Amino acid sequence: MQDAAAIVGIGTTPLGRGAAQGEHALAGQAILAALANAGLGPADVDGMVSYSIETTGVDEVAASLGIDNLGFFASAPFGGGAGCSIVGLAAMAVATGQAEVVVAWRARKRSRPANRPWAQAGAIAGGAQAFTQPFGLVRPVDEVAMLTRRYMHAYGATRDHLANVALACRRHAQTNPAAQMYGKPMTREGYHAGRPISEPLHLFDCCLESDGVAAVVVVSAARARDAPAGPVFIHAFANGLSTGNTAMTNYYGQCPLLGPGFAAARKLWERSDFKPSDVRVAQFYDAFTPLVLFSLEAYGFCERGEGASFSEAGALELGGRLPINTSGGGLSEAYIHGFNLIIEGVRQVRGSSSAQVTGADCCLVTSAECVPLEILRIGLPVRLAFRQMDERVWMPCWVPHA
Amino acid sequence: MQDAAAIVGIGTTPLGRGAAQGEHALAGQAILAALANAGLGPADVDGMVSYSIETTGVDEVAASLGIDNLGFFASAPFGGGAGCSIVGLAAMAVATGQAEVVVAWRARKRSRPANRPWAQAGAIAGGAQAFTQPFGLVRPVDEVAMLTRRYMHAYGATRDHLANVALACRRHAQTNPAAQMYGKPMTREGYHAGRPISEPLHLFDCCLESDGVAAVVVVSAARARDAPAGPVFIHAFANGLSTGNTAMTNYYGQCPLLGPGFAAARKLWERSDFKPSDVRVAQFYDAFTPLVLFSLEAYGFCERGEGASFSEAGALELGGRLPINTSGGGLSEAYIHGFNLIIEGVRQVRGSSSAQVTGADCCLVTSAECVPLEILRIGLPVRLAFRQMDERVWMPCWVPHA
Repeated sequence: MQDAAAIVGIGTTPLGRGAAQGEHALAGQAILAALANAGLGPADVDGMVSYSIETTGVDEVAASLGIDNLGFFASAPFGGGAGCSIVGLAAMAVATGQAEVVVAWRARKRSRPANRPWAQAGAIAGGAQAFTQPFGLVRPVDEVAMLTRRYMHAYGATRDHLANVALACRRHAQTNPAAQMYGKPMTREGYHAGRPISEPLHLFDCCLESDGVAAVVVVSAARARDAPAGPVFIHAFANGLSTGNTAMTNYYGQCPLLGPGFAAARKLWERSDFKPSDVRVAQFYDAFTPLVLFSLEAYGFCERGEGASFSEAGALELGGRLPINTSGGGLSEAYIHGFNLIIEGVRQVRGSSSAQVTGADCCLVTSAECVPLEILRIGLPVRLAFRQMDERVWMPCWVPHA
Repeated sequence: MQDAAAIVGIGTTPLGRGAAQGEHALAGQAILAALANAGLGPADVDGMVSYSIETTGVDEVAASLGIDNLGFFASAPFGGGAGCSIVGLAAMAVATGQAEVVVAWRARKRSRPANRPWAQAGAIAGGAQAFTQPFGLVRPVDEVAMLTRRYMHAYGATRDHLANVALACRRHAQTNPAAQMYGKPMTREGYHAGRPISEPLHLFDCCLESDGVAAVVVVSAARARDAPAGPVFIHAFANGLSTGNTAMTNYYGQCPLLGPGFAAARKLWERSDFKPSDVRVAQFYDAFTPLVLFSLEAYGFCERGEGASFSEAGALELGGRLPINTSGGGLSEAYIHGFNLIIEGVRQVRGSSSAQVTGADCCLVTSAECVPLEILRIGLPVRLAFRQMDERVWMPCWVPHA
């Protein structure tokens, strides 16, 4: 699969708040923009992939755009974990000849609180979340906050380390006119002035809530060589899931700080000619600042527990060891469920980023660490937790002491 | 991709009504059964695929079974269209080296009416269905009924032709002790005595509502040669979507009787060394009897309009030209969203079906004609229909006269 497929087109709608149009119309705009960037049109498309929770359906988007030769469609689970997954599926489709031109996209309209799942009246906590949501872990931020506390406790990380992530993203957004936070620089004091959201996470540890759509076009390596904007090859990709992982709330894993990123990274580097030391720029999934510190460890840029110290002295900013999220990322460009990170990865390799890293011949992009978020283990004495396995049987799960 | 991957294990739970356990526990049972059939265990699995609407999540099923080396997961949209799609995704994963052992499964628990989406209080008709559900096209059967009426009008098909499908499935269920309709043979008179559900479709034109799970295990062709139950190679597969198709309700296509099966079939036969004349047994997606007649035409077993006459004289029964749904299918074995058809396809090629077709060296399996159901055009004078494209813009769509 190495370099068997390439991204040849990227496109987005305006990113921000209060979009006048709905997700369906916005999806069409972004896809047409990506196709134009690739020198292609809807008639060329024969594959479409998106997140399993995407609300703009393959069939309806295809009908609206006049895509009428579809021969491949698929999706990927895990919300923010799906971004890199669907680009991988597109690569597999063209590599195996199941399709020639595949569009991948994600549409989000979240700037209005009513569009957020946890803010909906009558929402029902199902599955494993039925055992955590009623007790206060309602929003994604609540779950990541507990994990962050654990990380701070284990490794001595502080909120100043989280600030390093937020400030890098904000700085990079200042050269990107498309970013929501363009023209809104932030100081370290400004970061610390953010109101608490879920301790230890405050306002500027959290990604933006955005309206917007991002799309890419994937073709085979052979066909990509004609791409007007140049091909960006998909060198390697991998999914990963850690032992006992259950979406965002997992108290059953062997170690709360060994998230799915570690599993994905192992497979990724096995398949790659690059090593972490070859990578000079990365787009890390950044729904919340601590996830970037975790990813630095998971993907091998430092040892376990050293993500916080790695982030010091501007290492994550342009000019540093590993500039991250150079468009501003989910924290300062827009949060399109991680898919705009892929767009920016393409820009870096093309050499067209507004915060270009000199000589970036590859870029690592991650999606919720290639799956959901990090896992978490609560630091309480040994006890039994009960988990609903089906409608009748409640199975005990062992929760060992931290 | 030809023969690059193979199904080496199949498994199901008991199929029927009133299962004591929930979908999660049942999914685990079926997957373990499929792995045992393949001579493998959970520790061997590194890929999982299911329907995008599957309620038993990859992470939770993996955690329950102790699958802890996952490196690939994906899903496929379109409800009943996802069955063959996810087996195709599994084949792509092993063919490209993204995984070695992939489990594909579908869990359903629908024997209680409350579990059916259209029977849920407060269900909201969204997307394109907002323009049809309030006017009476509430259930899938209502939409297919309109298409069936059109088919009868255009080609002179009768309910006796639909009976040919129902009777073939019921007959085949009589030799399959696992079938819901085992021990319940049906006569033509019995078929016609079924109560109307949505004219012209009556009770026995509709698939069963079942509880159950079906699972398969896919590995590479090289690894498959060691499979204890023998490999069944995935020779070719394709998705398809017809022009202007929008899920089950489409009034915008060029021709209501040119469903997505025609699009999928064209790509499928291009990729296959077999021709329709080589195929002696098929498992056709049979949520409703007329879909089988449409598929006979779409997949090239007869000309357009000849599906009804093709079905005459026992052609679809054991001993006829093309025995279909030899386990009983969705109409008489169980309706596991089409996934049990794949299990039976494997049995036929293995030579272990309870209604074995002699010398079946290949078997065609379809899923909602490799996508949703057939499309439909209403036979009214030319008029404008308005479709919500986003929250503000309503776009006119031309609905030509039949």
